Amino acid sequence: MLDVCLLGTGGMMPLPDRWLTSLLMRCKGRMLLVDCGEAGQIPVRLCGWGFKAIDAVLFTHYHADHVAGLPGLLLTLGNSGREEPLILMGPPGIRMVVEGLMVIAPRLPYDLKLLELPVNQVSEVQLDDVYIRSIPVEHWMPCLAYSFEIRRQGRFDSTRAEELGIPVNFWGLLQRGEEIRLGDRLISPEMVMGKPRKGIKVCYCTDTRPVESLVDFIKGSELFICEGMYGHNHELEKAVEKKHMLFSEAALLARYGEVGELWLTHFSPSLERPREFEASVRDIFKNTVVGSDLMKKNIKFKE
Amino acid sequence: MLDVCLLGTGGMMPLPDRWLTSLLMRCKGRMLLVDCGEAGQIPVRLCGWGFKAIDAVLFTHYHADHVAGLPGLLLTLGNSGREEPLILMGPPGIRMVVEGLMVIAPRLPYDLKLLELPVNQVSEVQLDDVYIRSIPVEHWMPCLAYSFEIRRQGRFDSTRAEELGIPVNFWGLLQRGEEIRLGDRLISPEMVMGKPRKGIKVCYCTDTRPVESLVDFIKGSELFICEGMYGHNHELEKAVEKKHMLFSEAALLARYGEVGELWLTHFSPSLERPREFEASVRDIFKNTVVGSDLMKKNIKFKE
Repeated sequence: MLDVCLLGTGGMMPLPDRWLTSLLMRCKGRMLLVDCGEAGQIPVRLCGWGFKAIDAVLFTHYHADHVAGLPGLLLTLGNSGREEPLILMGPPGIRMVVEGLMVIAPRLPYDLKLLELPVNQVSEVQLDDVYIRSIPVEHWMPCLAYSFEIRRQGRFDSTRAEELGIPVNFWGLLQRGEEIRLGDRLISPEMVMGKPRKGIKVCYCTDTRPVESLVDFIKGSELFICEGMYGHNHELEKAVEKKHMLFSEAALLARYGEVGELWLTHFSPSLERPREFEASVRDIFKNTVVGSDLMKKNIKFKE
Repeated sequence: MLDVCLLGTGGMMPLPDRWLTSLLMRCKGRMLLVDCGEAGQIPVRLCGWGFKAIDAVLFTHYHADHVAGLPGLLLTLGNSGREEPLILMGPPGIRMVVEGLMVIAPRLPYDLKLLELPVNQVSEVQLDDVYIRSIPVEHWMPCLAYSFEIRRQGRFDSTRAEELGIPVNFWGLLQRGEEIRLGDRLISPEMVMGKPRKGIKVCYCTDTRPVESLVDFIKGSELFICEGMYGHNHELEKAVEKKHMLFSEAALLARYGEVGELWLTHFSPSLERPREFEASVRDIFKNTVVGSDLMKKNIKFKE
């Protein structure tokens, strides 16, 4: 099970009625935050899941609207009594960015662990139950799109386990992926576990042109959160110049990627009523939702 | 005439319903901003005076809740088409702080002019019509209190000017402080101008214990904007430890300094309803107002 909260939907600058684009995810009580622009800690507070369980903050890239809220967040985490280390990860340059910003938050009661992700290949990192993959996308500076997967093992075949004469008190070990020894027999998990079942996959992609590699990357996602900087198709030239996407381009990605649902976000400050474009973009991809601040979704394993 | 807008009233961190303490002032269309914590650009926008006329940003000190909003503000100024230089001033260390934060706003379409103010003495800087004075106060890092004065010259004595035989078309020059030559006579402004009249003075003081030098410094202010981190007097020990003030301490300063009006600000996030303390603090200083975000005042010269 995964809880998702789109904290904000703005691009460029925080507005009185629109927080900057950022994503909070919660799995088994632990949380990941993706991007943290100026004032990012306010919607985290409004979301209501607390601050303490945030284990890592991931950055797509280091433009101010995705990272300027970091020092304030770090101080607030410190004030909330945090002592465990916090992981910060993102494209190369993370050390320089964090050291620069820490000039106004020089002392924290916990450690920061920095993890630099490559921008020339796909990478995978596991944090507790979440597998985080990233691929490079196309923006004015190195920028990553992320996928978050919670994998799900196959069903335990109790009939087969009984046939093999495995005592019930060993079943849990096999379900947790451990081998067991029964007399002179070695029983491996594959002997009693079915094929892995479909897990949960969520993708987050902002500040990029719609590069082709995204189509494979997002395939099979229950939820694809994607930037849509501009609503009108006649703003294509601007989107190309600024290396952002139109709503319709994000919807095409969602369609080719066969995702379950598309949430649009990262609206230009000039886009005052993004919802006006929802109907037309649904002609391209039906399950499109124009995002709104603090929109939540609880994603469960499918039975 | 001076317009004052208290943009926010919070301390430590921005809250969903309370922006961080910051002051915007406008005189003859030009503006000064004092402090710019995280999300500081949002109440500037809400204030409605625009961004373009901001000539300088002053900092009391460099704790994150007073400076973390700078990169976002600078980028927004750039996006609003600014090309004129912007002055940034504050205690020593300003270069290090600005260079650190600029790692996420490396390219601006205008120049920054940094001005380091001393923390061991009173200093005075003039920006257009505003005389800015600062004195060191007592916090966990070098910190300044500011006064802003708009001076007002004496009344022009037209009877005297006529007695001296000064043609009317020279009166404006004398009123603007220039000497004129009439034949072999040198006429100086003092010969026709009365004594300077009372101008306008506003003081801003936050993140400090109530040091004695503040009493003289704020004397004669129409408006004294002062921190009050805690409302309850039994929080004195905490105020001393954290180098902040109680409401009652700020009110005593206002009383001894004989100011016109006191606005309290910079409330602890734990202080949910600061207004509850207004009545009791008015027993110490009658013209006390517990500040609220975006509170404005138009201060005119007294006739």
